[in-house]
Amino acid sequence: MKTVDLNCDLGESFGAYTIGMDEQVIPLITSANVACGAHAGDPLVMQRTVALCRENGVHIGAHPGFPDLMGFGRRNIAVTPKEAKAYMLYQLGALSAFCRAAQMPLCHVKPHGALYNMAAKDSALARAIAEAVAEFDDRLILLGLSGSEMLTAAQAIGLPCKSEVFADRGYRSDGTLVPRSQPGAMITDEDEAIRRVVRMVTEGKVRSVDGTDVSLCADSICVHGDGEKALLFTQRIGEALAAAGIALRPMSA
Amino acid sequence: MKTVDLNCDLGESFGAYTIGMDEQVIPLITSANVACGAHAGDPLVMQRTVALCRENGVHIGAHPGFPDLMGFGRRNIAVTPKEAKAYMLYQLGALSAFCRAAQMPLCHVKPHGALYNMAAKDSALARAIAEAVAEFDDRLILLGLSGSEMLTAAQAIGLPCKSEVFADRGYRSDGTLVPRSQPGAMITDEDEAIRRVVRMVTEGKVRSVDGTDVSLCADSICVHGDGEKALLFTQRIGEALAAAGIALRPMSA
Amino acid sequence: MKTVDLNCDLGESFGAYTIGMDEQVIPLITSANVACGAHAGDPLVMQRTVALCRENGVHIGAHPGFPDLMGFGRRNIAVTPKEAKAYMLYQLGALSAFCRAAQMPLCHVKPHGALYNMAAKDSALARAIAEAVAEFDDRLILLGLSGSEMLTAAQAIGLPCKSEVFADRGYRSDGTLVPRSQPGAMITDEDEAIRRVVRMVTEGKVRSVDGTDVSLCADSICVHGDGEKALLFTQRIGEALAAAGIALRPMSA
Amino acid sequence: MKTVDLNCDLGESFGAYTIGMDEQVIPLITSANVACGAHAGDPLVMQRTVALCRENGVHIGAHPGFPDLMGFGRRNIAVTPKEAKAYMLYQLGALSAFCRAAQMPLCHVKPHGALYNMAAKDSALARAIAEAVAEFDDRLILLGLSGSEMLTAAQAIGLPCKSEVFADRGYRSDGTLVPRSQPGAMITDEDEAIRRVVRMVTEGKVRSVDGTDVSLCADSICVHGDGEKALLFTQRIGEALAAAGIALRPMSA
Repeated sequence: MKTVDLNCDLGESFGAYTIGMDEQVIPLITSANVACGAHAGDPLVMQRTVALCRENGVHIGAHPGFPDLMGFGRRNIAVTPKEAKAYMLYQLGALSAFCRAAQMPLCHVKPHGALYNMAAKDSALARAIAEAVAEFDDRLILLGLSGSEMLTAAQAIGLPCKSEVFADRGYRSDGTLVPRSQPGAMITDEDEAIRRVVRMVTEGKVRSVDGTDVSLCADSICVHGDGEKALLFTQRIGEALAAAGIALRPMSA
Repeated sequence: MKTVDLNCDLGESFGAYTIGMDEQVIPLITSANVACGAHAGDPLVMQRTVALCRENGVHIGAHPGFPDLMGFGRRNIAVTPKEAKAYMLYQLGALSAFCRAAQMPLCHVKPHGALYNMAAKDSALARAIAEAVAEFDDRLILLGLSGSEMLTAAQAIGLPCKSEVFADRGYRSDGTLVPRSQPGAMITDEDEAIRRVVRMVTEGKVRSVDGTDVSLCADSICVHGDGEKALLFTQRIGEALAAAGIALRPMSA
Repeated sequence: MKTVDLNCDLGESFGAYTIGMDEQVIPLITSANVACGAHAGDPLVMQRTVALCRENGVHIGAHPGFPDLMGFGRRNIAVTPKEAKAYMLYQLGALSAFCRAAQMPLCHVKPHGALYNMAAKDSALARAIAEAVAEFDDRLILLGLSGSEMLTAAQAIGLPCKSEVFADRGYRSDGTLVPRSQPGAMITDEDEAIRRVVRMVTEGKVRSVDGTDVSLCADSICVHGDGEKALLFTQRIGEALAAAGIALRPMSA
Repeated sequence: MKTVDLNCDLGESFGAYTIGMDEQVIPLITSANVACGAHAGDPLVMQRTVALCRENGVHIGAHPGFPDLMGFGRRNIAVTPKEAKAYMLYQLGALSAFCRAAQMPLCHVKPHGALYNMAAKDSALARAIAEAVAEFDDRLILLGLSGSEMLTAAQAIGLPCKSEVFADRGYRSDGTLVPRSQPGAMITDEDEAIRRVVRMVTEGKVRSVDGTDVSLCADSICVHGDGEKALLFTQRIGEALAAAGIALRPMSA
């Protein structure tokens, strides 16, 4: 039976501030990307998120980002590869402590926001990220955008990696995402988005904004947990995949 | 042959800011307490400090503190034991990542500044700290003030612990340190300080500010690396101990 | 006609994080205490909050707090009076820049959370706070707990000050608030809370948890804007005051 | 008599961390650019730096930077003009509070590091910076790189501005600085550097790395205060200017 992973960014609350409906979305997914205290998350939030994943049997991954809480890690920062590597190690270690204390394995790593996007195109940054993961634990899976430099870098050093697709984003004919500032960036029709997801998983293809078919690899589908609508959409994706004979299964299972 | 450990707080630089003469002091000590990015230190500094320890065969410990860079972790913050435990886990994990990447073991833990002082007297906080260490890795040694609640807490849960003494601080007759705001807080005469150190190690006693002898346990002596004078003093301590037939040996050896 | 001020803590969002229903509560109040980027708030949030106050004709005050975003300024930090004074000046200045750019006056100052509570009892801290305000602008009104050291300090140096009461908090017979950890801390019956508010304003008295009447001065009533329930309660307070012949008017009008 | 200003970045210490020899360099300069707590500086440091300037009759300017203490404000961050404007206002206000408390005027503004360099070339960012200054106080002088977009933006909105040159940096034939990563970036020969400074002030020209003469405007010369060598060099610049009949005078005098 064909399987696919559903991943979601989680644990992004901070102190008195709440972002995301973690308790509601965790039961719907198979892999959680847990913020590590740089772009979001704090030690108590990380501890609680790991506990929630444990209760729901969801696989835990690290979701490291730029040290930019004010910008939620979404702004490009001109860090050196050396800095990026050290930031990755720091955050991987921090999250892994909560996993150890909860006797849960850390399974994968997905960089956040600007770090993810920059590393999708910048091979030196991608290499630094892959090396950080490998030096920390070379059995961890690096999750990156299908076709990105990050996956190339992981493969180059023999680090396990998986390829991620987005249900709600438009693709260009070269397999990259349509930037949010451009038309076609978001797939707003939910039915269409769900048809696209099923096709990405079953056929490994998606229709680009230019109208051509693009090949990609859908090991894991990124979903969101930041509102009732996002939760319902995630639920519908799960149902549509089931109807297509595709089971949900953690990418690290 | 009798042995004792010399420990020093290190890796307290941050970004463009330098504190401490880490390269000079590391060759003189046996155990390094490495700041973990909360009260001091940053990922690059942590990476560099671990590398320095590796080059010099110095045992590495974590030096977690309050998240208060502006106050250098020296100000009491009314955290709950639950918060303290989460802050400890976060920082232990962060430092351990650099140890793993450098293939060096993490050997001990010594809380910093206000966290150390508060936990010396507050049994609930001490318990939270000991539990954090045990849940992260129950083979780590918790280093605390001789006679403190932190050591009591470690013993209560079966966590290895060692007892620390200060060369340059005055003691009260109950074994606690004379607060810095009071007369007798600092031992300013270096010769006297060195005689006191040797006696603490050989006899397990120190003369209090009240003139009575206090029993304490000198597993490790805390030294400083923040200036030429501190370096020379550390060197003299090593020589005086050698002359007394006491070898330097990491507490975790 | 008798008047009273309604004040509310606002502008406590940060980056991608939202706290409070500022747009809904601002039309209901007369004075806004705007967070200044230390315990909460960021430059964009401050700018937006000042604009909202301007649109609604609400008087703007600064709401400085401890530099502890993770603890939302609610944890006691052992700062020196000198540090507190500098933190106050910094935050007063920062907020005043947005007022200047929006051509709005800065009218009052109300310290936040732990800083407010500590300064209610600690005369040296209270003095530092009052001095900071006076050195920045001696026409600003310092808003403090009725009967607190903060008001005493303001009076001692000739700084204008106003006295605040809480609709939803229990009082002890000495005029201090019942700590949140103790029974009677919160007035959970809304009708009772509203009767108490009206009495505090009209008679200058409130029934303590011990059953005695306490005298206090109700220049301003602190209300909350962090939920539908809080908004409705604020609306009801306004109506009850109107019914009792008391108009809402900014304390600095 | 011809005059020129000597400016230096100051107040960049933070908490327990010291950068710069502020006490030694302040007597040698005429304008101080004081860090505002984002890339460097903290409230106590700002207060102390303002006091030092006051004692020495040095004019005070704000030195706002990116909120990136770990990177000392030297890393490009992809902020929007709107964010930059708000960050500017926040920091201008914060510093001005210490000036008010010390009864000293705030005279000028010089953005720091990456913000300065980005705004030298990015007209939208430059515009946002100029607008922030003008909305805060349209009599403040914006200090920018000779020939930069920042000065163009100031002129476009009628904000006073002054043009800065560097004693120790190489220029390209288009008047921009040689990037630090390229040969010729630094003028390492002190005698040559001093001759260049005198020529920039007297003739308004500097020899570029390509060997051509470039016209520039030397209202103010940027000097450094981060070491004995820098202090001596600053002293020599002052002497060489005096010998050439040029007096030191604050740009805002």
